Amino acid sequence: MKIVVINPNTSRSMTAAIAETARRAASPGTEVVAVQPAYGPEAIDCAMESHLSAVAVMDLVLTFDEPYDAVVLAGFGEHGREGVQEIVDVPVLDIAESSAHVAQMIGRSYSVVTTLRRSVAAIEDRLRLAGLADRCASVRACGLSTLDVDRDPAAATEAVVAEAERAVRDDHAEVICLGCGGMAGLDAAITARLGVPVVDGVAAGVRLAEAVVGLGLRTSKVCTYAPPEPKEIRAWPLSRYLTTAAR
Amino acid sequence: MKIVVINPNTSRSMTAAIAETARRAASPGTEVVAVQPAYGPEAIDCAMESHLSAVAVMDLVLTFDEPYDAVVLAGFGEHGREGVQEIVDVPVLDIAESSAHVAQMIGRSYSVVTTLRRSVAAIEDRLRLAGLADRCASVRACGLSTLDVDRDPAAATEAVVAEAERAVRDDHAEVICLGCGGMAGLDAAITARLGVPVVDGVAAGVRLAEAVVGLGLRTSKVCTYAPPEPKEIRAWPLSRYLTTAAR
Amino acid sequence: MKIVVINPNTSRSMTAAIAETARRAASPGTEVVAVQPAYGPEAIDCAMESHLSAVAVMDLVLTFDEPYDAVVLAGFGEHGREGVQEIVDVPVLDIAESSAHVAQMIGRSYSVVTTLRRSVAAIEDRLRLAGLADRCASVRACGLSTLDVDRDPAAATEAVVAEAERAVRDDHAEVICLGCGGMAGLDAAITARLGVPVVDGVAAGVRLAEAVVGLGLRTSKVCTYAPPEPKEIRAWPLSRYLTTAAR
Amino acid sequence: MKIVVINPNTSRSMTAAIAETARRAASPGTEVVAVQPAYGPEAIDCAMESHLSAVAVMDLVLTFDEPYDAVVLAGFGEHGREGVQEIVDVPVLDIAESSAHVAQMIGRSYSVVTTLRRSVAAIEDRLRLAGLADRCASVRACGLSTLDVDRDPAAATEAVVAEAERAVRDDHAEVICLGCGGMAGLDAAITARLGVPVVDGVAAGVRLAEAVVGLGLRTSKVCTYAPPEPKEIRAWPLSRYLTTAAR
Amino acid sequence: MKIVVINPNTSRSMTAAIAETARRAASPGTEVVAVQPAYGPEAIDCAMESHLSAVAVMDLVLTFDEPYDAVVLAGFGEHGREGVQEIVDVPVLDIAESSAHVAQMIGRSYSVVTTLRRSVAAIEDRLRLAGLADRCASVRACGLSTLDVDRDPAAATEAVVAEAERAVRDDHAEVICLGCGGMAGLDAAITARLGVPVVDGVAAGVRLAEAVVGLGLRTSKVCTYAPPEPKEIRAWPLSRYLTTAAR
Amino acid sequence: MKIVVINPNTSRSMTAAIAETARRAASPGTEVVAVQPAYGPEAIDCAMESHLSAVAVMDLVLTFDEPYDAVVLAGFGEHGREGVQEIVDVPVLDIAESSAHVAQMIGRSYSVVTTLRRSVAAIEDRLRLAGLADRCASVRACGLSTLDVDRDPAAATEAVVAEAERAVRDDHAEVICLGCGGMAGLDAAITARLGVPVVDGVAAGVRLAEAVVGLGLRTSKVCTYAPPEPKEIRAWPLSRYLTTAAR
Repeated sequence: MKIVVINPNTSRSMTAAIAETARRAASPGTEVVAVQPAYGPEAIDCAMESHLSAVAVMDLVLTFDEPYDAVVLAGFGEHGREGVQEIVDVPVLDIAESSAHVAQMIGRSYSVVTTLRRSVAAIEDRLRLAGLADRCASVRACGLSTLDVDRDPAAATEAVVAEAERAVRDDHAEVICLGCGGMAGLDAAITARLGVPVVDGVAAGVRLAEAVVGLGLRTSKVCTYAPPEPKEIRAWPLSRYLTTAAR
Repeated sequence: MKIVVINPNTSRSMTAAIAETARRAASPGTEVVAVQPAYGPEAIDCAMESHLSAVAVMDLVLTFDEPYDAVVLAGFGEHGREGVQEIVDVPVLDIAESSAHVAQMIGRSYSVVTTLRRSVAAIEDRLRLAGLADRCASVRACGLSTLDVDRDPAAATEAVVAEAERAVRDDHAEVICLGCGGMAGLDAAITARLGVPVVDGVAAGVRLAEAVVGLGLRTSKVCTYAPPEPKEIRAWPLSRYLTTAAR
Repeated sequence: MKIVVINPNTSRSMTAAIAETARRAASPGTEVVAVQPAYGPEAIDCAMESHLSAVAVMDLVLTFDEPYDAVVLAGFGEHGREGVQEIVDVPVLDIAESSAHVAQMIGRSYSVVTTLRRSVAAIEDRLRLAGLADRCASVRACGLSTLDVDRDPAAATEAVVAEAERAVRDDHAEVICLGCGGMAGLDAAITARLGVPVVDGVAAGVRLAEAVVGLGLRTSKVCTYAPPEPKEIRAWPLSRYLTTAAR
Repeated sequence: MKIVVINPNTSRSMTAAIAETARRAASPGTEVVAVQPAYGPEAIDCAMESHLSAVAVMDLVLTFDEPYDAVVLAGFGEHGREGVQEIVDVPVLDIAESSAHVAQMIGRSYSVVTTLRRSVAAIEDRLRLAGLADRCASVRACGLSTLDVDRDPAAATEAVVAEAERAVRDDHAEVICLGCGGMAGLDAAITARLGVPVVDGVAAGVRLAEAVVGLGLRTSKVCTYAPPEPKEIRAWPLSRYLTTAAR
Repeated sequence: MKIVVINPNTSRSMTAAIAETARRAASPGTEVVAVQPAYGPEAIDCAMESHLSAVAVMDLVLTFDEPYDAVVLAGFGEHGREGVQEIVDVPVLDIAESSAHVAQMIGRSYSVVTTLRRSVAAIEDRLRLAGLADRCASVRACGLSTLDVDRDPAAATEAVVAEAERAVRDDHAEVICLGCGGMAGLDAAITARLGVPVVDGVAAGVRLAEAVVGLGLRTSKVCTYAPPEPKEIRAWPLSRYLTTAAR
Repeated sequence: MKIVVINPNTSRSMTAAIAETARRAASPGTEVVAVQPAYGPEAIDCAMESHLSAVAVMDLVLTFDEPYDAVVLAGFGEHGREGVQEIVDVPVLDIAESSAHVAQMIGRSYSVVTTLRRSVAAIEDRLRLAGLADRCASVRACGLSTLDVDRDPAAATEAVVAEAERAVRDDHAEVICLGCGGMAGLDAAITARLGVPVVDGVAAGVRLAEAVVGLGLRTSKVCTYAPPEPKEIRAWPLSRYLTTAAR
């Protein structure tokens, strides 16, 4: 089985970290291909960047020409899952949703700990539209941006663990979801300190993708996620029309 | 007062129709500038196209260099309002949301009649995230695509009126919102046949934009819609990096 | 355009203050007529007073014999909008609902700051029935009655700003709605101190009334807000049956 | 124990019918006093009439000078319960809410069958604000007004039974609540034909009032339903200021 | 009228305490029979124990051979009400639901104060499935187990009153429900200290059972609570197959 | 990896069918052990039977003495998952919930098709408590009992496909979940006829169990699903106290 894991931003180091997490999580026999879009932001902290990344990811998928069995979208709260579901036949898993699915399987309620307060809205929206908000006790922000987390992992650990502690104590979360790709590795620290299971989204996405593929199931094409009708789309996929300066 | 009305697709005839509706709806003294993105689909019927249009619209806004007082996004159920709110200071109104606001002011419940069944999901999502779904009796599809509506307005009228009638009779809608830019002009036919008020989204967006500007209010920048943090974004705005072939 | 703004209580000074706010908010060319009922409470802080004011307001509307284009009901959380919608054809705007509509147009979430804790229930109920509660982060009370606000505006400012601050910090409100007619003028103070937009209900109601009138729309009469059927109603409108002692 | 049952309209025949139902439902030892307001509509089918009746009922309660143990408000979907709770200390039961309470005790879901389609909104609102809408499968209208039901009970029986049948078959209601005072006596017909229990609101209100009184409980006065603060209220209670012509 | 009150655990002292509360609450002429199952836990604090008690209670009901008019299930948050409704014809009242019903009749919102934090989930679930969660401000735990409450009533009073105080102050509860059978007697202490009414579930259950019986109503058998179809059930009722060692 | 799949009823043929489905769905290297309780109903169609099966399943788990990695509960809508989560450390998956999880991964909305109308309530409750009801378009019944399905698979296929068709056409379901263990094999028929993916609960449960185990995660023991406190439980596990006649 081959799973394409897509880092929605253009940071190569983040793609590498995601690839490592995905490979560690995958079953023996599963091949992980980690990729990133050709354009867009180096990190995603707002709606403008999220929309742009959604397009860059769809572009990447349309121009990716190897066969594969499933897609995992490694942005936590980013737009785009529905669009990718339309343009491929294989299962498409979003890591925010995957985290919530797994969290609900192992606990009565979960909280997400993410980066900046301004990103909370996007995660709440994604969980709500996916029908996974009901068991969400809270989405909390540790106050550090994606790039901050990348730069100072020790300070990030402290901030995230503190916020997770508030989620457990004040919001009665029984599981913690790490709401940011760069937070990989924090799970051990949190479980050790708080005694609650911690779900890593990339790992969850990979394992759920394996499960859906293993069941022989694919995205329903009967209505909402049917392939786009043929029509004139100017300059699409955009990557084919970008000047060499853009690369 | 100057309002920029953005057709999210690349169809010039649709931009012209939207401009006409917007101008007819505007107060004396309001100038309407109707524009369309440089790239993207000629009509929007699915998530892939909606995401792409959201980016093309943001691109257009970032590269639009005249002063203006408000933005109206003339896509019914398209993505992008939150992103545009981040990158400009003036009020940003989405026409699906504007329709729902006005419908709730004049009736206990409303239904939306849109084009294809597959577009229902996008409209439901937009209304839900905007906190405007509670008084929505239904989102119904007449079964014709945006391009079909454009091509055969008479058949479209018949199909839309029939669906509106079901909304009033079966879902107890007391107001009908026309869920597609190309449906302008249908309102008179529906009101005449069914006796319910009909809200045109473009008209509603323009008048609500005037109201918010008149109140001296702007988008809250305190958290979710704060301007994007400066960071490296590859090839953005994309229009600056497109080859001449793309234009 | 002529808008009738109705103060639901019998305090002449409050009617004057509301008139001033309404006129300042109105577009050039809009005439504001501010009126108050002939009977009922001098301020409204509970359900008994709210029900009585709803009847006194309907009575006023039934006996008001000049032509006009819209009605704005200037009570925040009071009963009566539905009843007035039944007895007039022109649009009827309630200021609590108008505040919420505008707040949702300019921010992801809003809080209402009102007077007494006991009034919170009425505001929550009104927003909920209007389908506008979903984006309401909280309804908070500053602990002062309507009359207290009237008597000591400086202390009121302090109390309201403090409560708005809690709404922004603890409930993540991004817009504040002033939940009491007598709070006009506080908006500048709050915006200066907290950086969030503040919506005044009377101003919002006037501008939204202009928008709906401008769109050529009226209340749907197809079902819930159809005119009352003719029937025997004893002593109605009550004002015609009151003794001279009551005036 | 003495229970005051208040018919919210001014029809003496309806008061008599309500009194009979209430007395038949009451326990031995419970005295029922059925009363009606001095002014207002002879039947209540819309919000204007409902608001007026709420005031007339509060007026009646304020001027009623015998001691009693509980109040039952015999309007199905009418306004006013909260106001009466403020002005008396004893328990106050509304019959729409009482029906729903009892229906939930004996079945998984219930439907209300009321008179006119336009009254559905008021009942839905009352159930929703009371926190009793979740198990409500539907509120259906038989298409006859309160006065129609009064005039032609046989036709009404047929219409109500037909609508109840739809509620059971299509909405999966397991209990039927009769949504109109004048429908007393229909319960036997419906149970015989459909095999589902039927709850009469007046009877339910009386028995629940006995239960609450028997428990030694009274309305919480700690916040929302505290007595109104003393203040100037012009011409209140209105009945004291009505001319003799009004009586 | 004869009401069977079932203590779901096997503690004889708790059965006696429940019997006393039930008898004090019952109307003159109501006979209370308090019983307990033949097997299962001496106190119920988790789902395993709750499921076991549900079966033991159904077993008890199936093998109880005297006639009676209603059943009151005296476990707060325990499973089993639906099962008992299937196997008997008479009304079945659950005390958590009964508390919530009565609380909603006398206040705008209520909180439950229960024993351990881990029991909160079960109570929330029961209220939610019963459609009674909407007016529930919070379910709070005092941190003591059912057995702790039994052993040290003075410490329990202190802990429960402190938690009730938080519910009133922070969650704006206007009524308190005692979420544990062993808490009988605490109501006077809480009302004296906090000024809010306190509902005892056993008392509420008995009085509501009287009301439903008095109305001549029984559980709807039309669908969900129809009697179980005849089929082979191995070793049921279990009590008939238990060895003498089990008794 | 070893997964214990528990048929909650006592039918050996159903256990065999479940075992076969589970084995076909499992990854290479996963061992499936299919078991059934020692007492309880041969099929489960109501709450009484469901409660009894929950206890019989917990009993089975407590007395099962081999090591294993996960539990799959193969009852669709039955009680008991929370209780089993308390008494074991390994992940516990319920098949109704597993179906819904997978359905949400591959489609915007799903419907469940189950056996009898009376079982709809139990499935709706389970999905709701699991926080998975939001994307559920409907739970529909084909009108045949579990035993009917077993006896006449051809007629069952017809009835189930017809109901699935209504779910797709009228409720806009995009995925169908088979709501009954005995329905295995119907998925191919439905997908062929309706073009929508069909999720089998047992298969979904097995694959999700593999995923959670593969992630190294276990049920959160921090609060709700902590192990039961030691206490006196009379005759538990019941199987140890049953007479030989019961076996």
